[in-house]
Amino acid sequence: MGFWKTWFSTSESAATNRTAPFEEMSAEFTGNNPNSDRIVFSTERDIDLYELEELCDAVGWSRRPLRKVKKAIEHSFLVASMWQVRGNQRRLIGFARATSDHAFNATIWDVVVHPDFQGKGMGKALMKYVLKKLRSEEISNVTLFADPHVVDFYRTMGFMPDPEGIKGMFWYPH
Amino acid sequence: MGFWKTWFSTSESAATNRTAPFEEMSAEFTGNNPNSDRIVFSTERDIDLYELEELCDAVGWSRRPLRKVKKAIEHSFLVASMWQVRGNQRRLIGFARATSDHAFNATIWDVVVHPDFQGKGMGKALMKYVLKKLRSEEISNVTLFADPHVVDFYRTMGFMPDPEGIKGMFWYPH
Ligand SMILES: CC(C)(COP(=O)(O)OP(=O)(O)OC[C@H]1O[C@@H](n2cnc3c(N)ncnc32)[C@H](O)[C@@H]1OP(=O)(O)O)[C@@H](O)C(=O)NCCC(=O)NCCS
Ligand SMILES: CC(C)(COP(=O)(O)OP(=O)(O)OC[C@H]1O[C@@H](n2cnc3c(N)ncnc32)[C@H](O)[C@@H]1OP(=O)(O)O)[C@@H](O)C(=O)NCCC(=O)NCCS
Repeated sequence: MGFWKTWFSTSESAATNRTAPFEEMSAEFTGNNPNSDRIVFSTERDIDLYELEELCDAVGWSRRPLRKVKKAIEHSFLVASMWQVRGNQRRLIGFARATSDHAFNATIWDVVVHPDFQGKGMGKALMKYVLKKLRSEEISNVTLFADPHVVDFYRTMGFMPDPEGIKGMFWYPH
Repeated sequence: MGFWKTWFSTSESAATNRTAPFEEMSAEFTGNNPNSDRIVFSTERDIDLYELEELCDAVGWSRRPLRKVKKAIEHSFLVASMWQVRGNQRRLIGFARATSDHAFNATIWDVVVHPDFQGKGMGKALMKYVLKKLRSEEISNVTLFADPHVVDFYRTMGFMPDPEGIKGMFWYPH
């Protein structure tokens, strides 16, 4: 189902529908936003891949084949997106996804907030949304691999580096 | 399909069937084994959960609900098992699994070799099998979280801890 179709149909019944794929940021939060656009979170997967590519370009990530991005989104356990909604326009301003065994663990990948929206608590709000979704699925072990410059960002959300000496390790084909 | 049914039917056609779910360890390797049992690797998922629990018990891992173990196996991208085959008996002696987005990354979990078989290169052989399978699926970023006492084990296989300062981080519900 297209974004708007789902957004409008679920908005109407948001109060009664607990499994709505969309959630609005709390009034308290958007109250701090001078032009009071709505910030909406979603777990819908039908994200425009070009719009996602634009977002990743904006933070300088190297391009990846859209065919593989599509496959990765299909096979992620959770796909979370953050949207600025202004009138009947919407703009993708944040993204994150997680792989999982659906039982014990999840690993978060590709966390990104558009530079225009960084430093305003949006990344934290996106991560809170992701963690809430993973918790609701009874995933008890949430992991990620953090670039050195964002270790403190994740630390503010309660992520611990190398707990009890556990080391993140990488292998690349050779 | 049951283990034996698959094992015998694929053994017969092993030479022609490239997608057989079973693989025998090379003759060179088993030649070092005094009683020359066959060591067999498999990606079949229909593992007896009690046999798996026994293997995990043997290395002192804490028990997990079988319902969740079943779900985790179902939703893992790769499930690898290692068997000792002697006559018409088979014994589960090693296990590993990986979650993945089927495109870019995979994360390996629950690597275990039965204590009776440790220190003989079996863990390395199991990991080689896992890496070969992941490579054949064009996964380019293979990761894991290593307990402090096994960091060197993974290092011998080419895994790097914290490459370019990337930190493994964990979050637990609170
Ligand atoms: C990392 C990123 C997602 C953070 O999003 P953001 O919206 O700017 O972060 P927030 O405004 O929600 O910040 C939340 C907290 O983290 C801190 N923080 C934010 N970015 C940080 C950084 N790069 N380093 C250290 N702390 C940071 C903030 O000070 C804030 O702390 P506080 O709660 O004590 O006030 C965003 O900067 C981004 O997309 N960066 C580029 C892509 C990237 O590097 N992703 C991570 C890949 S591993
Ligand atoms: C870790 C484990 C899978 C290794 O299996 P194994 O069959 O004993 O390992 P191998 O005999 O194949 O050893 C391969 C190499 O790693 C080294 N190695 C093995 N175990 C090691 C350890 N605990 N610490 C450091 N190096 C180790 C070996 O010396 C060998 O090195 P080499 O190739 O230079 O000779 C096994 O010991 C095990 O199941 N342990 C308990 C469960 C566990 O801790 N799993 C990991 C969870 S993160």
